[in-house]
Amino acid sequence: MSESMHGLKRTHRCTELSAANVGQEVIVMGWVQRRRNLGQILFITLRDRSGLLQLSFNENTEKELFEKAETLRSEYVIAARGIVVSRGADANKSMQTGDIEIDVKELRILSEAETTPFEILEDIDTKEELRLKYRYLDLRRPDMQKNLILRSKVTQSVRRFLETEGFLEIETPIMQKSTPEGARDYLVPSRVHPGNFYALPQSPQLFKQLLMVSGFDRYFQIAKCFRDEDLRADRQPEFTQIDMELSFVEPEDVMAVNERLIQTVFKEALDVDVQLPIQKMTYKEAMDRFGSDKPDLRFGVELQDLTEVVKGCGFAVFENAIANGGTVRAINAKGMGDLGRKQIDALVKYGQDFGAKGVAWHQIKTDGEEKSSFAKFLSEKTLAAIKEKMSVDKDDLILIVADKPSVVFAALGALRLEVARRLDLINQDEFRFVWITEFPLLEYDEEAGRFVAMHHPFTMPMDEDLEMMETNPGAVRAKAYDLALNGCELGGGSIRIYQNDVQKRMFNLLGFTDEQAEERFGFLLNAFKYGVPPHGGLAFGLDRMIMLMCKADSIRDVIAFPKVKDASCLMTNAPDVVDQKQLDELALVIVEKQEEVIEE
Amino acid sequence: MSESMHGLKRTHRCTELSAANVGQEVIVMGWVQRRRNLGQILFITLRDRSGLLQLSFNENTEKELFEKAETLRSEYVIAARGIVVSRGADANKSMQTGDIEIDVKELRILSEAETTPFEILEDIDTKEELRLKYRYLDLRRPDMQKNLILRSKVTQSVRRFLETEGFLEIETPIMQKSTPEGARDYLVPSRVHPGNFYALPQSPQLFKQLLMVSGFDRYFQIAKCFRDEDLRADRQPEFTQIDMELSFVEPEDVMAVNERLIQTVFKEALDVDVQLPIQKMTYKEAMDRFGSDKPDLRFGVELQDLTEVVKGCGFAVFENAIANGGTVRAINAKGMGDLGRKQIDALVKYGQDFGAKGVAWHQIKTDGEEKSSFAKFLSEKTLAAIKEKMSVDKDDLILIVADKPSVVFAALGALRLEVARRLDLINQDEFRFVWITEFPLLEYDEEAGRFVAMHHPFTMPMDEDLEMMETNPGAVRAKAYDLALNGCELGGGSIRIYQNDVQKRMFNLLGFTDEQAEERFGFLLNAFKYGVPPHGGLAFGLDRMIMLMCKADSIRDVIAFPKVKDASCLMTNAPDVVDQKQLDELALVIVEKQEEVIEE
Repeated sequence: MSESMHGLKRTHRCTELSAANVGQEVIVMGWVQRRRNLGQILFITLRDRSGLLQLSFNENTEKELFEKAETLRSEYVIAARGIVVSRGADANKSMQTGDIEIDVKELRILSEAETTPFEILEDIDTKEELRLKYRYLDLRRPDMQKNLILRSKVTQSVRRFLETEGFLEIETPIMQKSTPEGARDYLVPSRVHPGNFYALPQSPQLFKQLLMVSGFDRYFQIAKCFRDEDLRADRQPEFTQIDMELSFVEPEDVMAVNERLIQTVFKEALDVDVQLPIQKMTYKEAMDRFGSDKPDLRFGVELQDLTEVVKGCGFAVFENAIANGGTVRAINAKGMGDLGRKQIDALVKYGQDFGAKGVAWHQIKTDGEEKSSFAKFLSEKTLAAIKEKMSVDKDDLILIVADKPSVVFAALGALRLEVARRLDLINQDEFRFVWITEFPLLEYDEEAGRFVAMHHPFTMPMDEDLEMMETNPGAVRAKAYDLALNGCELGGGSIRIYQNDVQKRMFNLLGFTDEQAEERFGFLLNAFKYGVPPHGGLAFGLDRMIMLMCKADSIRDVIAFPKVKDASCLMTNAPDVVDQKQLDELALVIVEKQEEVIEE
Repeated sequence: MSESMHGLKRTHRCTELSAANVGQEVIVMGWVQRRRNLGQILFITLRDRSGLLQLSFNENTEKELFEKAETLRSEYVIAARGIVVSRGADANKSMQTGDIEIDVKELRILSEAETTPFEILEDIDTKEELRLKYRYLDLRRPDMQKNLILRSKVTQSVRRFLETEGFLEIETPIMQKSTPEGARDYLVPSRVHPGNFYALPQSPQLFKQLLMVSGFDRYFQIAKCFRDEDLRADRQPEFTQIDMELSFVEPEDVMAVNERLIQTVFKEALDVDVQLPIQKMTYKEAMDRFGSDKPDLRFGVELQDLTEVVKGCGFAVFENAIANGGTVRAINAKGMGDLGRKQIDALVKYGQDFGAKGVAWHQIKTDGEEKSSFAKFLSEKTLAAIKEKMSVDKDDLILIVADKPSVVFAALGALRLEVARRLDLINQDEFRFVWITEFPLLEYDEEAGRFVAMHHPFTMPMDEDLEMMETNPGAVRAKAYDLALNGCELGGGSIRIYQNDVQKRMFNLLGFTDEQAEERFGFLLNAFKYGVPPHGGLAFGLDRMIMLMCKADSIRDVIAFPKVKDASCLMTNAPDVVDQKQLDELALVIVEKQEEVIEE
């Protein structure tokens, strides 16, 4: 049975009603959260996106109407007309509208409902697979509603702010040319040009730079981006960026407008005050102190450099690392001095998962007893020097990693976070931002045997490092900046190269021939011949930003219809096979996977 | 040579300066529009997105600086620091900043420029192919800048309005499941699931309906949509929709909020007042009076029905049409009575291009002389009756089409527009809106031999016509509505079917088996089992809306990076071939097109 709503017009959402409306006739519509039948009295908790409201049927209710109410079940969609009455002493303090209820005069069942595969409640313990299969039901749950409502609020806030700051929202194409640098492209076969393909954009990078060449000056877009990568917990094949580009700017200008953006958005969406200016830290300092280019500054446990202290100490692990150009660094996990061997081994294992060959440790228990994995190899003097450097006290645990710097930073950076989690050092209510600046321009790709761009090939080197591009490329710093929040990268960007000669030197460093550069980025290089303004930009990962703002565990909880690890949609069963006719039109044939033949 | 802007910070855009700034030191940056060298004095017209500003160098300018200014050429990007001075009597009234100029004290050449392939001016006569190849230069032209700035303004205005009205912006996936109903899908091959494909969305239709099932109540999105169709002048493979869906609504609710949206946007973006309510007209009335379901109401020249008048007249063309269930209708082109035979023949030909087998005509010249293609076949009485019905006067031209209704409406609707254009009846400054309602639910597809949905398979029939679904499906009207502006369809939508039994009847009418319905829309039908609110929505074509607002000739003029007729991008050369490795990863092989073998 589906009744029509004809003749009834919703007057309020559930929580738009309050004691101020007592005595009014209202019409509400929504889902039955639950029915409580107390014999002479019957209560319906009605739910809509705003919250809950109680409908009541009692001894004064017409018999037919009361009987109709008795047929209601969870998730029926109903319309109810009635009078707002006060619940007086029966008020339910835990419910926003708990001091009123609707004395129902008319009830229509707009849609019946079968029993849902899980309850429509906050914090349910349902398997994510089931939630995603029935995403339309999962999205009814108050926490998912809250997340998506916040997301909408944030995007509107972002747009309002950027419009006020003179940014123009300009759409760039989704069907682009494939440029095989960076991650793997998703391709779209062309029917009109058989054998040719479009690619879905990994970001609007080239187009936003072209918009600067066109003189639009300040561009933004909340842009869909696509990467065909193997999915990690926090990746999606399609994701959303707050993307912007500005002309006639230096790094400070981009950072300034973006920290005001952050301040505005956090205030408007969360009522959280972000103090400006946001702290700035060079990449080098971030690595030295926190072992990470996106340090979580909500707690200390900073890295200390023991390289000088242990130089010539005789302990082969330390000595060899240093001899090979490595470094020896440590953290002091204060409050872990009494850890048992098993727990320490777990920490060592944790460090090894991040690439360390081993983690040397030294503990001072609360009773003063010391245990150590390496003390026997060192002189008393060296041990004392380490302890001094690490400001050791009772109940301390020193964790040391000796290796090449990238490994030391990765392992100790990770251990630092793990220690903080175990010691519960992190204030979950704090939003701690930090700009990381002066990133290396390049990183060396061992596998490819060449330098690759740390951000992308259009990132401008710092003026003072330009001359090192050929002599010491690994040392060149870039006009690049990231904004980190609570140990996550929220976004990043750079000033771009706008001089053809510098761009050429950059391509040379990356090992591109002129032909390759022309083939991949020809239209950009060509555009740069006709007058290009100095420009730079930034992009925020919107999904992650919302996740952090919601304190959600996964970006899947802030995306309406996410995909799972194998890039499929459990609700619609995409991707799926298509008709042969569709393939024929695209001049494509699917290669059957060869079964492996096992010879007997 | 590229100088750095370091140490200089732009203080104003060009037209942010006025006489109020005289005496101030300012820093401006932009492109050289032109240089005028008058010997002792040199003027540079500087351009940025805001407009133009004059820079001056004169006898007091340092020699080195003057000489640097002499090297400037069109489209160089420069930064200039100087003092705002009044031009006094030399003021240029045709320029917004014509009463001031900048007495330049410092000049930096940020980027040199080669000669551009066309001039950066409004209304240039350059071939569109060249403009699109150098789109980044084309976009510098003031008219293109104005169009895209207006587009940005409109989208912000739309979002602000919808947010105020309680709409949530929710992103739906770009990588979806292919549902082969409607236009051709663009496909995206899956690497993880070889042989499987995603499809780019033709619209977010199913997802927005699911969001209503989820209880979000009011959704909107400015959404990219994709259709792999052969491109007509006003089509793009990717286009943008203002897309929305509302729960607990009837047609009037959707129309009411959308006409307020239109009013707000036209006011904010164009300062045009749209009077509410917008006129409503049934589909039947629109066809009868204007021969179109998107009538241009800026002029009259309405259709008249002559069927009753000519019934039994003896003229075979009219009689046969009527006997075959057709109709005889006409327009009176007042002011065309003196047209020569050649011009009349051209109109006849025009009507034939729209499907009419012929166009009967009767002219009354200003001197009273009459000529006619059909009068000789009719009695005087019938001719007189036609003239009376058509309110004929001197200088009139009657154009009559007799055929089945669809042909009559198409031909006369088109002739009506053509007549108005030739007689210059159309006020180009007027924005004339009209809602068209009560569309037929179905139209008969002669080729397929079955009914197809006029909007889509989820459109709700009108309550009073439900009973005719099986007995007279062609007569069933839908709860569908379009908004037309000046003869173009601006957008449209409908109330959706939310009852499973009605949906089943609809699928039956469309000839879907239960299996086909399940295969294509299973997840939606499944969702509807768990309590679905009455809901409906609407989508506007943003590109066309902006085109009409800009009075542009083509949607390509309001899209930053459009594609041309063969769906290629002339600037980036997309689509293009891709690496073999990319195809291998997708398990795809391209079928070589077989050359036609010509036997000798």
